[in-house]
Amino acid sequence: MRYSLLFGKTLNRPPKEAETVSHKLLTQAGFIDRQLTAGIYSYLPLGWRVFKKIEQIIREEMNAIGSQELLMPALQPKELWEKSDRWDHMDPPLFKFKDRHEKYLTIGPTHEEVITDLVARFVKSYKDLPLALYHIQDKFRNEMRSSGGLLRVREFFMKDLYSFHTDEKDLDKFYLRVAAAYKKIFSRCGFETKMVEASSGPIGGDVSHEFMNLCETGEDSVVYCPKCDWAANAEKSSVAKCPKCQTATKVVKAIENGHIFQLKTKYTEKLGAYYIDKKGNKKLITSGCYGIGLGRLMATVVEAHHDERGIIWPKSVAPYQVHLIALNVPGDKIYKELEKAGIEVLYDDREEVSAGVKFADADLIGIPVRLVVSDKTGDKIEWKERAKSQTELLTLGQVVDKLKNEKTA
Amino acid sequence: MRYSLLFGKTLNRPPKEAETVSHKLLTQAGFIDRQLTAGIYSYLPLGWRVFKKIEQIIREEMNAIGSQELLMPALQPKELWEKSDRWDHMDPPLFKFKDRHEKYLTIGPTHEEVITDLVARFVKSYKDLPLALYHIQDKFRNEMRSSGGLLRVREFFMKDLYSFHTDEKDLDKFYLRVAAAYKKIFSRCGFETKMVEASSGPIGGDVSHEFMNLCETGEDSVVYCPKCDWAANAEKSSVAKCPKCQTATKVVKAIENGHIFQLKTKYTEKLGAYYIDKKGNKKLITSGCYGIGLGRLMATVVEAHHDERGIIWPKSVAPYQVHLIALNVPGDKIYKELEKAGIEVLYDDREEVSAGVKFADADLIGIPVRLVVSDKTGDKIEWKERAKSQTELLTLGQVVDKLKNEKTA
Repeated sequence: MRYSLLFGKTLNRPPKEAETVSHKLLTQAGFIDRQLTAGIYSYLPLGWRVFKKIEQIIREEMNAIGSQELLMPALQPKELWEKSDRWDHMDPPLFKFKDRHEKYLTIGPTHEEVITDLVARFVKSYKDLPLALYHIQDKFRNEMRSSGGLLRVREFFMKDLYSFHTDEKDLDKFYLRVAAAYKKIFSRCGFETKMVEASSGPIGGDVSHEFMNLCETGEDSVVYCPKCDWAANAEKSSVAKCPKCQTATKVVKAIENGHIFQLKTKYTEKLGAYYIDKKGNKKLITSGCYGIGLGRLMATVVEAHHDERGIIWPKSVAPYQVHLIALNVPGDKIYKELEKAGIEVLYDDREEVSAGVKFADADLIGIPVRLVVSDKTGDKIEWKERAKSQTELLTLGQVVDKLKNEKTA
Repeated sequence: MRYSLLFGKTLNRPPKEAETVSHKLLTQAGFIDRQLTAGIYSYLPLGWRVFKKIEQIIREEMNAIGSQELLMPALQPKELWEKSDRWDHMDPPLFKFKDRHEKYLTIGPTHEEVITDLVARFVKSYKDLPLALYHIQDKFRNEMRSSGGLLRVREFFMKDLYSFHTDEKDLDKFYLRVAAAYKKIFSRCGFETKMVEASSGPIGGDVSHEFMNLCETGEDSVVYCPKCDWAANAEKSSVAKCPKCQTATKVVKAIENGHIFQLKTKYTEKLGAYYIDKKGNKKLITSGCYGIGLGRLMATVVEAHHDERGIIWPKSVAPYQVHLIALNVPGDKIYKELEKAGIEVLYDDREEVSAGVKFADADLIGIPVRLVVSDKTGDKIEWKERAKSQTELLTLGQVVDKLKNEKTA
């Protein structure tokens, strides 16, 4: 992509409303627009590329544990939410409105009602279970206060997975597989993650865990054991020593990026989701649900990976692999060669802009590798990684090989 | 995918509410669920795969004409729609509701307001133009009567592209490029398409065209010239001879799947979107918008491609490339070999089901190629195309080669 043609260039300064680091950097670097209205954002082309990479990582890990992707609607009828007794009790509340037939609808913040109703009609027997279904879909929350850019919004994409089982033992087993998949997703996005016990809130169930991604600017604190894998929300735990192995605990800052719940029969009972067991008896289906907010995860990546000059994207979710800058010499040929080799390139081809501005923009945008061609680099290319300070001169062939090896690594 | 594990198997009969062929077949074959409430549907895993293929075709053709993908939100504030004077005048009307701050919001049926506001803030000079931006996004229409399954709904995914230009001449040029891209999209989805002049309705502008995909079950009629490329809506035209070349015209049934508009300065004026021209003068930006409904397109494919036994998916949008059936012999090895070769396989591995049911389900689901292994096929595989009646016996290697050649064709 030629930077001269890209919609959503860097801004001189972040919007006044931006308070968190991620909000400042994502808007100033041209990944998201300023808010359209409280807690509602457009993703600009650069930001949408990062979103799509995060989405694909999540999709791959959900498919790897045998989940099937589908799509449920945003619009949902009141009747379903009355069955689950949540029409009046969700917090943050539902957006509610009437259609032209005077029937109440909501735009869903979550899909336990819709999926349980669907499964109730399609699942007949124990042979149809277990079953895991997910979608990556636009959701809505009537928040009183939205803040922090993409960290707390009123409209957001969520990957929500729902699983259905004959019994709690099978749910337990799958719950652990999802937990492992979540750790893999967050690890691929560049995080160290702690899984902690959580309160299940308006979703319900009595077993629930949150995934806390370590991040110095995080609002939450996690107390953990450096020896075994024990961890807990610091608010909820004032433990001085690890309850598992008695090692002295440590406390770190973190941001919550995933929440999983053993719903058991909470929704299947209310919505009538049964199966026939091997003996011919009618039994309630047991279920779990598992969520990750994609925009919040993107913002958390920036909270955890930046310096005073800008974002430092992990390779896995960077909008492009390399940021090519040409100074006083033509860069078009190298740009085309890199694209031909299958490398994702953002090419700063602006002629009227100084080297200093180009370098500052590259640091702000945060693509992992910066390539410079100039009258000083001769027939070579200067390679510099965003997270490092040293540079090296490489041939085009060496650049391509290095990038291709990284991609398949 | 093993059919025994697939969520959303075939039904014995379509739901009573289904009137159109596409609604009947898509629900009975397990592509979509019955409606959750009027005009609101879930896509089951099979249907979601078709959706994703159509989405990718559209994305490729949009990118090929230099458009950039982004994402705008569904929630939109009243103020923007008052600026364009459409808050009270859209038809079908907007869904409107208040948030907890008593501020009115809508969930958008279209994005002229949001994109023009965005462009007004980012575009400064003639150097930033032309510009083409699109998203593929969930939209909402407060229809009084929704009907026909995915053909007329209240919630739907739309690809909406918006273009911005210095003048009408440049808009004209891009408008023709979009028209060509649309014909390519519909051709890749298996259609012959006629582009006809249209009324611009609540979107506005005075130049507008619809893309009519020929289909015997279509509600619309198109009168066209078999010699030159002239075509018009039959309702609007009672021409007995082609006005361009005087050849006798023909009339065919069709379904509208795309609508493009030269908005010119309708929205840029109301939302204040200007640029500075080469001479330093402030001028209004000229714009166009271009839409395709993805669910409606999927339903139209089925309307155009089916027989009395079920759907006949074009290869480009089929949920899988082959439907493998094993009768009285194990099929697992061939299934794995095909998957290993990168072939998309739906494998009917059900043991308790008769050959007759498996064949009927394969015809209903409509995957382009059916492969059968049985005690009669020996070490070969029976190849049968859904649209043809003859069969042939091939080795696994021949099957793989044939499918791979098709994919790259």
